[in-house]
Amino acid sequence: MSTFRFAESSGMPIYRQLENGIRKMILDGNLSAGDRLPSSRQLATDLGISRQTVKNVFEQLTIEGFLNSRRGSGTFVGDVAVMKLPPEMPRDRRRLNGYRVQPSKHARAIAATKATTRLGSVAAFRPGVPALDMFPRKAWSAAHSRVMRSGNDILFSYGPPGGLPELKRAIRLHVRDHRGIRCDEDQIVVTAGAQQAFVLIALTLIKSGSVVWCEDPGHIAVRDAMRLLCADVKHVPVDRHGFDLEYARQRHPRARLIFVTPSHQHPLGITMSLNRRLELLDSAQQHGCWIVEDDYDSEFRYAERALPAMQALDGSGHVLYVGSFSKSLFPALRIGYLISPPGLVDAFAAAQTLLSQNVSPLQQQVLASFMLDGSFNAHIRNMCTLYQSRRDLLVQGLRQHAGSFLDIEPCLAGMHLIGWLRDGTANELVAAEAIRSAGIDCLPLSIYCVEQVLRPGILFGFACVPDSEINAATRVVGAAMADALHGGRHNVPPRQH
Amino acid sequence: MSTFRFAESSGMPIYRQLENGIRKMILDGNLSAGDRLPSSRQLATDLGISRQTVKNVFEQLTIEGFLNSRRGSGTFVGDVAVMKLPPEMPRDRRRLNGYRVQPSKHARAIAATKATTRLGSVAAFRPGVPALDMFPRKAWSAAHSRVMRSGNDILFSYGPPGGLPELKRAIRLHVRDHRGIRCDEDQIVVTAGAQQAFVLIALTLIKSGSVVWCEDPGHIAVRDAMRLLCADVKHVPVDRHGFDLEYARQRHPRARLIFVTPSHQHPLGITMSLNRRLELLDSAQQHGCWIVEDDYDSEFRYAERALPAMQALDGSGHVLYVGSFSKSLFPALRIGYLISPPGLVDAFAAAQTLLSQNVSPLQQQVLASFMLDGSFNAHIRNMCTLYQSRRDLLVQGLRQHAGSFLDIEPCLAGMHLIGWLRDGTANELVAAEAIRSAGIDCLPLSIYCVEQVLRPGILFGFACVPDSEINAATRVVGAAMADALHGGRHNVPPRQH
Repeated sequence: MSTFRFAESSGMPIYRQLENGIRKMILDGNLSAGDRLPSSRQLATDLGISRQTVKNVFEQLTIEGFLNSRRGSGTFVGDVAVMKLPPEMPRDRRRLNGYRVQPSKHARAIAATKATTRLGSVAAFRPGVPALDMFPRKAWSAAHSRVMRSGNDILFSYGPPGGLPELKRAIRLHVRDHRGIRCDEDQIVVTAGAQQAFVLIALTLIKSGSVVWCEDPGHIAVRDAMRLLCADVKHVPVDRHGFDLEYARQRHPRARLIFVTPSHQHPLGITMSLNRRLELLDSAQQHGCWIVEDDYDSEFRYAERALPAMQALDGSGHVLYVGSFSKSLFPALRIGYLISPPGLVDAFAAAQTLLSQNVSPLQQQVLASFMLDGSFNAHIRNMCTLYQSRRDLLVQGLRQHAGSFLDIEPCLAGMHLIGWLRDGTANELVAAEAIRSAGIDCLPLSIYCVEQVLRPGILFGFACVPDSEINAATRVVGAAMADALHGGRHNVPPRQH
Repeated sequence: MSTFRFAESSGMPIYRQLENGIRKMILDGNLSAGDRLPSSRQLATDLGISRQTVKNVFEQLTIEGFLNSRRGSGTFVGDVAVMKLPPEMPRDRRRLNGYRVQPSKHARAIAATKATTRLGSVAAFRPGVPALDMFPRKAWSAAHSRVMRSGNDILFSYGPPGGLPELKRAIRLHVRDHRGIRCDEDQIVVTAGAQQAFVLIALTLIKSGSVVWCEDPGHIAVRDAMRLLCADVKHVPVDRHGFDLEYARQRHPRARLIFVTPSHQHPLGITMSLNRRLELLDSAQQHGCWIVEDDYDSEFRYAERALPAMQALDGSGHVLYVGSFSKSLFPALRIGYLISPPGLVDAFAAAQTLLSQNVSPLQQQVLASFMLDGSFNAHIRNMCTLYQSRRDLLVQGLRQHAGSFLDIEPCLAGMHLIGWLRDGTANELVAAEAIRSAGIDCLPLSIYCVEQVLRPGILFGFACVPDSEINAATRVVGAAMADALHGGRHNVPPRQH
């Protein structure tokens, strides 16, 4: 025991250090089963600590099985299994980092997914993030406090599978009024965002190796999630009517799941034509496959009313409609919903329980009251007006400062527009990287593409940028592009995503 | 068009009804491509509505592609794809419920999982639910309001993959002080509860058909989740030292993942002995498999300090430690954590993004401040005292009112105890169902079992029951058991779980 030393600066209490030290000696084989320890009096004197401390440590280690006390004859090392662990156990922090577990190929592929790219940013011109600066924090906070104060205890527990009835009612009314959807409340599953809905669908309806058709360009996290679940993802281009069904039919094996964004193609912004919708529905019915309608931002339209959801055209129960509050409220709410044919709801709800339990009933209740008292509708109306004006400022700024590099047309819906590079041979990755190096967020169109090669373009999100910052930020975009595309920096290696 | 009728009581605006009506006629084939519609003036007169309403509807349907307007010559049905949908489209609510999609065998198996059983209840004597009646709502609400008022916009967005640094720091300090775990903050992944951590582990480390060893009796949602992910689940009994490694080695193929609850076996309450822990670690290292240490309620101990976590004994990076705030705070928080060897963290964080995006950074921030200001520790201390006294009241009540049916010993940790049926041949399902029919929640031990047959027992949770209700509830338990076991009601069919 004389080798034992206290690390005075470790911030760990003396008794813990002694405990850990004795455990380590036993586990490392420096003390063996049956070895007798010094008496507590002796050890206390040697170490200059109180005898009671030593006694407490002996007691704890005896409970744990490391030591054995025989009344009257002393304290002995217990009959601890002979360790076959490496002689140098990297138990302290420095050494713990010394070993690095080698992740499998599968784990490395997961870690390399594009979907995690810089989720944290809310800077200009981050696509897909709403106007967090204008979020009605006060009203939301008040709704939260009300629920905390007077909500039933049950709201603090796990909540009913599939979601809180009150929130399902609010969602039913919302999709009826905004999306032309008629459904029963028991067709709705409240999910932890749209992404979870996609995963629930796949876990329930496909198996390893099932063919899934995804749009190309398309939603990155969807196809990465399908790959995580070992689906055979096939990439289908979009034409001016949307998802190119004919292409898919000719080139790919029949799908079990088809992911589409009919209201507002992600990221191109195309609205799927009525005929294309009907063809897709027809095909799904004939071949018994499922259409996942990802309706991620249909609340924000600046020209005309949206087409009703495809779900509203579906007469045979082949559409799974997915909505989200990440764009219409804020991403950190982590609530979305899945509207499903009746026969599948129980499976989706059970799969959700197994994935992560249900969505917090507390947050569901806050959201329900925010929706049912009209605050949600008012917020959407306000954001529609705000986004339209931010879009106009962005169009104006980009045309003014980057008009020689980019073709800019105002988008008719959503939260981003695409600036098409005038020089169709310019490298959009170089341009986007230059803009990002100058402190402005944006995404090159090609990161959404797998097989398709499109005219080079860059996505600029306008929703999350305060009006006052838009023009200055577009000036930075223009300068960075001038530098990158005319300043001889064409050779900058493209950033890896 | 003369067949069109308004449903005055539908609550849907007139223009919507007209829109839907025309769409339906086209989709049903009652109006065909090229058919001419009555003029807006004519239709308005026929239907007794304003001409402007009709014009608006025509305009919307023209945008959608259902109609075609040729200036001067009228409005025509558009070139809508010939529908092969069933002639009777069940678009209205009544009919929507008319079709029922037949779920696949896989979907039905998911829907039948035991894990969803009555998640909503917080009544006496629900196991696994903390004292929601004593939760410091005010302090929590205040922390939430502070974050809402002054938190950075970024907290309202998606948050950094793996979790907020501030919360990871708070978790590191907590597990260091309470569980003897030394880790870097970047070994921590904040998850949407423990259940999500289990799923992340499986998605990253196993594939379809991989062997997973689970305790029997054991955590229901864990094994159901492993089955959902197509693992080959093998059931391993527990003896008085915990997980029976020898049994598993002899009967089952080598595992890739081993799920254990060493601190407090779920649901039996056994603490895994030191030697068993070391044998398990040794085995994991030799065979390159992973141990998932589910440390779900180790905060609540009434006799002695807990053994340090197995993770603290692990010198070679084979333990994945999973903790949760569902018991120590409240389930609706939906936050847990995974402490992993360094090499795997990126894969876990990426898998989480693909499953459901990250945990709400807003909620993470609230939790971090609740932990870092000492409120969390104080709460745990208070709950420890409270639960001990609730346990004592439960023991006293059950001995008094149900002592002729149940052997009752106070548990030394956790939030439930097991009442062992004195008559070892009595049917615990019948007894538990009788108690539940009398309005008292409880769970028969056998629902946690797969292959093992144990002495009949019933789980009674005491944490969530206000002190004042405990005695009365035990009286109901006694009466119900008397009725069921002595009253000739042995033939009541057991409830299906």
